[in-house]
Amino acid sequence: VDGRQAVDAVSLHAVVLAGGSGTRFWPWSTPARPKQFLPIGGAESLLVRTVQRIGPLVPTERTWVVASAGLAAEVRRHLPALGEDRLVVEPCARGTAAAIGLAALAVAGVDPDAVLAVLPSDHHVARGAAFRELLAVAAERAAEGAVVTLGVPPTRPETGFGYLERHGDRVVRFTEKPDRETAARFVAAGHLWNAGVFVARASVLRSVIAVHLPALHRVLEHIAAGEDAFAEAPGVSLDHGVMEPLAAAGTPPVVGLRADVGWSDLGSWSALAEVGAPDASGNVVSGTPVLIDSARNIVHTDGGTVALVGVSDLVVVRVGDSVLVCPRERSQEVRRVVEALAGGSE
Amino acid sequence: VDGRQAVDAVSLHAVVLAGGSGTRFWPWSTPARPKQFLPIGGAESLLVRTVQRIGPLVPTERTWVVASAGLAAEVRRHLPALGEDRLVVEPCARGTAAAIGLAALAVAGVDPDAVLAVLPSDHHVARGAAFRELLAVAAERAAEGAVVTLGVPPTRPETGFGYLERHGDRVVRFTEKPDRETAARFVAAGHLWNAGVFVARASVLRSVIAVHLPALHRVLEHIAAGEDAFAEAPGVSLDHGVMEPLAAAGTPPVVGLRADVGWSDLGSWSALAEVGAPDASGNVVSGTPVLIDSARNIVHTDGGTVALVGVSDLVVVRVGDSVLVCPRERSQEVRRVVEALAGGSE
Repeated sequence: VDGRQAVDAVSLHAVVLAGGSGTRFWPWSTPARPKQFLPIGGAESLLVRTVQRIGPLVPTERTWVVASAGLAAEVRRHLPALGEDRLVVEPCARGTAAAIGLAALAVAGVDPDAVLAVLPSDHHVARGAAFRELLAVAAERAAEGAVVTLGVPPTRPETGFGYLERHGDRVVRFTEKPDRETAARFVAAGHLWNAGVFVARASVLRSVIAVHLPALHRVLEHIAAGEDAFAEAPGVSLDHGVMEPLAAAGTPPVVGLRADVGWSDLGSWSALAEVGAPDASGNVVSGTPVLIDSARNIVHTDGGTVALVGVSDLVVVRVGDSVLVCPRERSQEVRRVVEALAGGSE
Repeated sequence: VDGRQAVDAVSLHAVVLAGGSGTRFWPWSTPARPKQFLPIGGAESLLVRTVQRIGPLVPTERTWVVASAGLAAEVRRHLPALGEDRLVVEPCARGTAAAIGLAALAVAGVDPDAVLAVLPSDHHVARGAAFRELLAVAAERAAEGAVVTLGVPPTRPETGFGYLERHGDRVVRFTEKPDRETAARFVAAGHLWNAGVFVARASVLRSVIAVHLPALHRVLEHIAAGEDAFAEAPGVSLDHGVMEPLAAAGTPPVVGLRADVGWSDLGSWSALAEVGAPDASGNVVSGTPVLIDSARNIVHTDGGTVALVGVSDLVVVRVGDSVLVCPRERSQEVRRVVEALAGGSE
């Protein structure tokens, strides 16, 4: 059931990456309250739901969270049952490769045979049981030495994602953020979206980092020896620094599993349309706005009176003292507001 | 200068109608804080600017304000110099005919020869000096026995206004809220918008009310005799109850003066485009919103952070706990929000 039986044979640990500082859900998300701490599309925060989702497969004592020092207290508040030493603190932001390397070091110190499931903390997965079954399969393949990644069947030629090109279940190429035309070709060819989930033995991760990111490997050796060397790690993502060259090299194998699990990266306000239930006019609403002759809007309000009259296809958000108005198809540009606020006199 | 010399010959009193309870500027205006108390398009409230505008022509001791009991305290707060007995309180809302009749009674009690200039308290006039010159001319004509009204040269075939049809300067017909086609014909024919400003002797007003609104006349007689009869007055506007039949009857003459004075009734949020200065992208802004790739919007905010990304031709308002988003051309429909809030469970 839920893949639990299959995975009992391997020592599966979860490494939840909670260091993200994205501001794509401004004004709901802020640098002090990034997306993973928000209850987007559910009652609990995305971080809590990430841990709950894998709960039947990975018990709390094998669940690890990586986060920056500034977010550590918030992680503890959301996950009070997290073990004292299961929170791995990044001394500074150096991208996911360094964060995952640091976590792999910590897990291997406790369990040298560990298989790690590296999970983003700010994604939505509609079908948790299907996700766990897939993760159990991934754990088996990882125990055999593969580096496994989950690939989501695309629903649109999205240019903001990475794509996995497979031969059989072998990933032969990672392509980050293709242009529109290439993305359309990838979708037609059956390539998958990179969901940012990786499963591998801690020892395998260590060796592929040694081959493809030797600078990070040296830093991790210093840290293992008790030195404070994290700041010297190269600031690069695992996808770009390790998975891309690994897929090209082909050894150990990169396995891509098709993940039809109702996934969304919740990359912008417009993604709420994927996880929320629209009303009769197609509005996706949280809070209690007043909607008059208004259709297909995404409205989020935490109080007060928010009224829309005769508007369509907008994102309208009120959180505390802040208000956002933006067309749905431009909600990716919300970061420009955050930049303006950081750079301006506001 | 400013018509002061001309008007010295007549005893001109101003009757400022401050009983309006419109909610067209929701959420800035509310039933407890109607439009006349808001500093729309200026530093002072519309009520204060109305009184200041006529100041060079009408001294404080000849300035009267009519308002409901619920708004009396707010009127005093805005006009601390207003004489103790110069605030005429309407016991209940019965439309402008009854309000003006009540005020005429009060003024005539002090000055039987008074000429009244009846002025809305919630309009904008860009050219105050020109307005005063016109009012002085109106006062002279009124002293001679005419009922004088100001007519604004139309800038669009507005269907929400009343129109004055003139032969020479004689108004021969009032038409309220024509349909689109009729409005276009009126504009082409040179008809004027009814600005809601009336100038007449108190004694003339009394007699035209007696002829055209005998029910109101009787109520005013009872009030003059010390009775508490206001609630029995017919609830009708002066335009509809008196001016329309008076223009048709032709005696005493209704004189319409062309008022090219930069007038706006500020009938909805979109009217701010007429009184505010647009930025380089055509946005008319009060407060300090963050505007990114956004054009021709009307934005009003009293604090917090209000951000617009990639939107155009919208009204976006944040006042206190409330937010409004509406296309400019539909800002007349804001009343539907107020109705929804009054009728709903919100």
